Amino acid sequence: MIILFGLFVRYDEESDAHWSEHKHENNITSDIENDFYYRYPSFQDVHVMIFVGFGFLMTFLKRYSFGGVGFNFLIAAFGLQWALLMQGWFHSLDPADGQIKIGIENIINADFCVAGCLIAYGALLGKVSPVQLMVLTLFGITLFAVEEYIILHVLHVRDAGGSMVIHTFGAYYGLTISWILYRPKLNQSKNLSGSVYHSDVFAMIGTLFLWMFWPSFNSAIADHGDGQHRAAINTYLALSASVLTTFAISSLSAKRGKLDMVHIQNATLAGGVAMGTAAEFMITTYGSLIVGFCCGIISTFGYLVITPFLEKYMKIQDTCGIHNLHAMPGVLGAVVGAITAATASESVYGHEGLVNTFDFKGEYAERTPAMQGGFQAAGLCVALAFGIVGGAIVGFILRLPFWGDPSDDNCFDDEVYWEKCSLVFPSI
Amino acid sequence: MIILFGLFVRYDEESDAHWSEHKHENNITSDIENDFYYRYPSFQDVHVMIFVGFGFLMTFLKRYSFGGVGFNFLIAAFGLQWALLMQGWFHSLDPADGQIKIGIENIINADFCVAGCLIAYGALLGKVSPVQLMVLTLFGITLFAVEEYIILHVLHVRDAGGSMVIHTFGAYYGLTISWILYRPKLNQSKNLSGSVYHSDVFAMIGTLFLWMFWPSFNSAIADHGDGQHRAAINTYLALSASVLTTFAISSLSAKRGKLDMVHIQNATLAGGVAMGTAAEFMITTYGSLIVGFCCGIISTFGYLVITPFLEKYMKIQDTCGIHNLHAMPGVLGAVVGAITAATASESVYGHEGLVNTFDFKGEYAERTPAMQGGFQAAGLCVALAFGIVGGAIVGFILRLPFWGDPSDDNCFDDEVYWEKCSLVFPSI
Amino acid sequence: MIILFGLFVRYDEESDAHWSEHKHENNITSDIENDFYYRYPSFQDVHVMIFVGFGFLMTFLKRYSFGGVGFNFLIAAFGLQWALLMQGWFHSLDPADGQIKIGIENIINADFCVAGCLIAYGALLGKVSPVQLMVLTLFGITLFAVEEYIILHVLHVRDAGGSMVIHTFGAYYGLTISWILYRPKLNQSKNLSGSVYHSDVFAMIGTLFLWMFWPSFNSAIADHGDGQHRAAINTYLALSASVLTTFAISSLSAKRGKLDMVHIQNATLAGGVAMGTAAEFMITTYGSLIVGFCCGIISTFGYLVITPFLEKYMKIQDTCGIHNLHAMPGVLGAVVGAITAATASESVYGHEGLVNTFDFKGEYAERTPAMQGGFQAAGLCVALAFGIVGGAIVGFILRLPFWGDPSDDNCFDDEVYWEKCSLVFPSI
Repeated sequence: MIILFGLFVRYDEESDAHWSEHKHENNITSDIENDFYYRYPSFQDVHVMIFVGFGFLMTFLKRYSFGGVGFNFLIAAFGLQWALLMQGWFHSLDPADGQIKIGIENIINADFCVAGCLIAYGALLGKVSPVQLMVLTLFGITLFAVEEYIILHVLHVRDAGGSMVIHTFGAYYGLTISWILYRPKLNQSKNLSGSVYHSDVFAMIGTLFLWMFWPSFNSAIADHGDGQHRAAINTYLALSASVLTTFAISSLSAKRGKLDMVHIQNATLAGGVAMGTAAEFMITTYGSLIVGFCCGIISTFGYLVITPFLEKYMKIQDTCGIHNLHAMPGVLGAVVGAITAATASESVYGHEGLVNTFDFKGEYAERTPAMQGGFQAAGLCVALAFGIVGGAIVGFILRLPFWGDPSDDNCFDDEVYWEKCSLVFPSI
Repeated sequence: MIILFGLFVRYDEESDAHWSEHKHENNITSDIENDFYYRYPSFQDVHVMIFVGFGFLMTFLKRYSFGGVGFNFLIAAFGLQWALLMQGWFHSLDPADGQIKIGIENIINADFCVAGCLIAYGALLGKVSPVQLMVLTLFGITLFAVEEYIILHVLHVRDAGGSMVIHTFGAYYGLTISWILYRPKLNQSKNLSGSVYHSDVFAMIGTLFLWMFWPSFNSAIADHGDGQHRAAINTYLALSASVLTTFAISSLSAKRGKLDMVHIQNATLAGGVAMGTAAEFMITTYGSLIVGFCCGIISTFGYLVITPFLEKYMKIQDTCGIHNLHAMPGVLGAVVGAITAATASESVYGHEGLVNTFDFKGEYAERTPAMQGGFQAAGLCVALAFGIVGGAIVGFILRLPFWGDPSDDNCFDDEVYWEKCSLVFPSI
Repeated sequence: MIILFGLFVRYDEESDAHWSEHKHENNITSDIENDFYYRYPSFQDVHVMIFVGFGFLMTFLKRYSFGGVGFNFLIAAFGLQWALLMQGWFHSLDPADGQIKIGIENIINADFCVAGCLIAYGALLGKVSPVQLMVLTLFGITLFAVEEYIILHVLHVRDAGGSMVIHTFGAYYGLTISWILYRPKLNQSKNLSGSVYHSDVFAMIGTLFLWMFWPSFNSAIADHGDGQHRAAINTYLALSASVLTTFAISSLSAKRGKLDMVHIQNATLAGGVAMGTAAEFMITTYGSLIVGFCCGIISTFGYLVITPFLEKYMKIQDTCGIHNLHAMPGVLGAVVGAITAATASESVYGHEGLVNTFDFKGEYAERTPAMQGGFQAAGLCVALAFGIVGGAIVGFILRLPFWGDPSDDNCFDDEVYWEKCSLVFPSI
């Protein structure tokens, strides 16, 4: 990794000490115009989502909290280095000297890229070894970079919050791998696959940091100015609608109206996933609420009905329920994005606003909103194809016998991979 | 909610795709002048305070952690949608087309509005049903919006961090409701009204995030430039002084000098509450320290003496002690604000600084600092009146028999409202 | 404290209400140029590191979580007031009126100053009384301010993230005190010096917030523009490399390849410490990775070999292992910084970039990079000398018999200093 960085990676003009001269040449009058100040607060929020959000959301299992937060940390730290290289080769290669120029936007994108692999980990939580996770990440990041290049650059699709690129791809990648690694006798360790009281409270830390900072996730790489502003507001609204419907459906579906913590930890977030594409568009405030409303219903319903169905009939064991939180809302988000794009008009966006929002510039100056809608839909198909085909290939690689995966008895148990944790854990 | 948003809510000019044209018309040269960049970092800090701060502070009960963080989440997500509508009608209605224009400042204000209801929840924690909480929030937000309109717009009072508008109102609203919902036989479930070791550590997460981000709370909607800068510094100083006096009083008041975790979790925050009004004024650095010093004493003393007194003689059961953390410091903060405003002078603020800080513009150009001090004091009376009268009305509504409130036996117990949590909770 | 602030501390021109006039006089066209907007997001990240990061990292002991997070809170709140005064006298004294002018940069520096004392607390965790900690902080802050003045102003050394000023000083200060306060019979309470399952998960909260926000720590007071941008990217890369080597070494060093949570909680952070000096230089991306790679190895190796060695042969009891996380990486960071500075050239930095990065202005206009490298090395010696000599003096003061330090039996036990915590803690 060090050698590759040494050969290929350099600072971009905004993080290089030549910035003073760059300012003079481009008549930039103030340091505050450095992209760093536009994006750094959102970057840190995204960073928190990746490490604390995903990490703590996965501590809910009673004896796999170390594995949840610890392996999440490992995957993320490994993945973001690899992502800087992979995404750099596709997006930030300077044709003048053949080197990757990195700045704040690259490290946000690396965090996004890692998010795809962490989603996939959600389906496999407790059932794979750290080595398998490294392999999953290595291939996942590589596939992600290619998929992202095709969607964002070849098809020129807009997907600032990654409904397609991150969530749809990551979820189907993980689900396909989980399908191939199906363990028919997993019920043997079923007594460990639940939560205890305090592990559920730990998981709420993850949920809340994901929930709060999702507006930053969807706005982090949106356009300066109104784009970032609007993306944050739309996501905030969709998320708040998801919470209400999740509480309502969770309570209505149970005997005596009791709430299920699994729903609250997960389905409340579905609105953010589904706004990944359309957040920066003029989807309107009530449009955002409708999206959040629908996602809360779909996602809670998924936990109640679809996850047991997938496990029983489709042989897909999905530990965290990523099908409900990422796959379905991701696809929905892509569809919403395509429709919103297809119906965009100059009267709503203004001429300049339309050009800026959809980046109808250069070779894309002739594209119309209707065409853009079609390309958005095509982007969804690419994401699905990469997730499923890529997941199948990586799944078969992970089935090779030398990766040290835990036996069925040892699933969902930290004792296999962590020192001393068994001694200090009282009988629960 | 969706219909109301559809009819009434639109993006403001800084979050609308017409921002490019707005920039040209107003000679704005850079996207960084979008209000988003001035306020978004503070917004996210406030957001963390609302969801993680309040949420985790309320996990301290040994068997009500789900209810503490979960219902906090529900109230907040519901409340902020309703607050956008209610506050919008009073503050952001565009007379040209009768629609509410929303941007970053509106969503910060919605979070503030929700804070008032969450404070009230603190007095009722463990004793009310989720449906009662929704009713409390619905009326609480509505009352808040009217009260805020009278204080900030009719009386033209300055209250950027909401000592009056948020804390005084919220605390007396909650205390009055708690008084009306008094449960004489609550001691039956008293064995559940304490904490366990790890639930106290969870609560410290809430305390620390509230404590750290309070400078953002008090500066989030202060004036651009020196106003936000000064509000953050003053709050930071007052909070640090509160911590020292809280540790000192807590230790001095106990036999053998032991510290009480309840004091550390709560009274350390009192300085932030009390700086809600005066933080953006030129209160001086030592003024901030004095305020924090006094509040730490008052608040810790409240937990030691006043809360037991209120419960025994006034029949007010205040689970989290909001009288000590919000009511008394809020009133003190309003008084400090009135005095600081009344004694403001051009020699201290400069001419322009005085006009900007107190917004002596337009129809208020003739107002003097002494008059402003009087109006500040009037604002406090309005907040108190709304809290007590509003709380009485809502309290009687909540006593109606069909809201499904828990029996005395079931208070402070998650088992009534949450699935499965009893099974996994070992005998403690 | 209030009196001292009253006599000496005033707002600086950016947080004073005269900012409007200051803008006119200095042709500043926008409020966004107020330093507040350049630094506030990083300030809040640093604030989180100090209170949540250090605080929760120290909750790992099974019965000392209250003391870990609680006394951390006390030290930090006390220390930052004292630091504003002490650092102010040395750095921000206005010669015109003999007063300290404070703004955003001062409160960031106060947080940094406090970090030095919290590092020292790490060596003493569980073995000293709160009063001893206050004394340690009082002297520690004072020594820090003098040391910082000599390093940054007299020697004109660059150390934005404090490898020398904060980490090296703080670690040797704490280790020396711990050496003087050696308790030969501490093994009596050894059964309390370990962790339990959930206390380790709490500690991971601290680890992750430190890890995520370290880029803000190293960039918070770096130069506007490219300096802050580059410091964040370099730190991000070094940290990610540390994680990988920590997991690898931890796994390779154990029988059956199991991971040790202590390593994951601590050694993953070493890359951030070691980039404290060089982060703002043009160290290159692969340089950052190399630093992080080496630190992960050194630090994990330290936990495996050096900490037991120090305890057994050197009589230094280092509860949190600060020698591995702060002392060694801090010294390494200072050496890396000196080398990077000595090898700087105009071809890499550009003429203006070189002058800005090393501040070769005014009386230092004649300094060359090679000379700067020598001064950087001298700075390290100053930090070491202050840490060891200062620690020895304060250690002897703390051995005086009237500070109420706990007996060996009561070490690592919250029951001595906290109410009620024994009752609610089940037999573990």
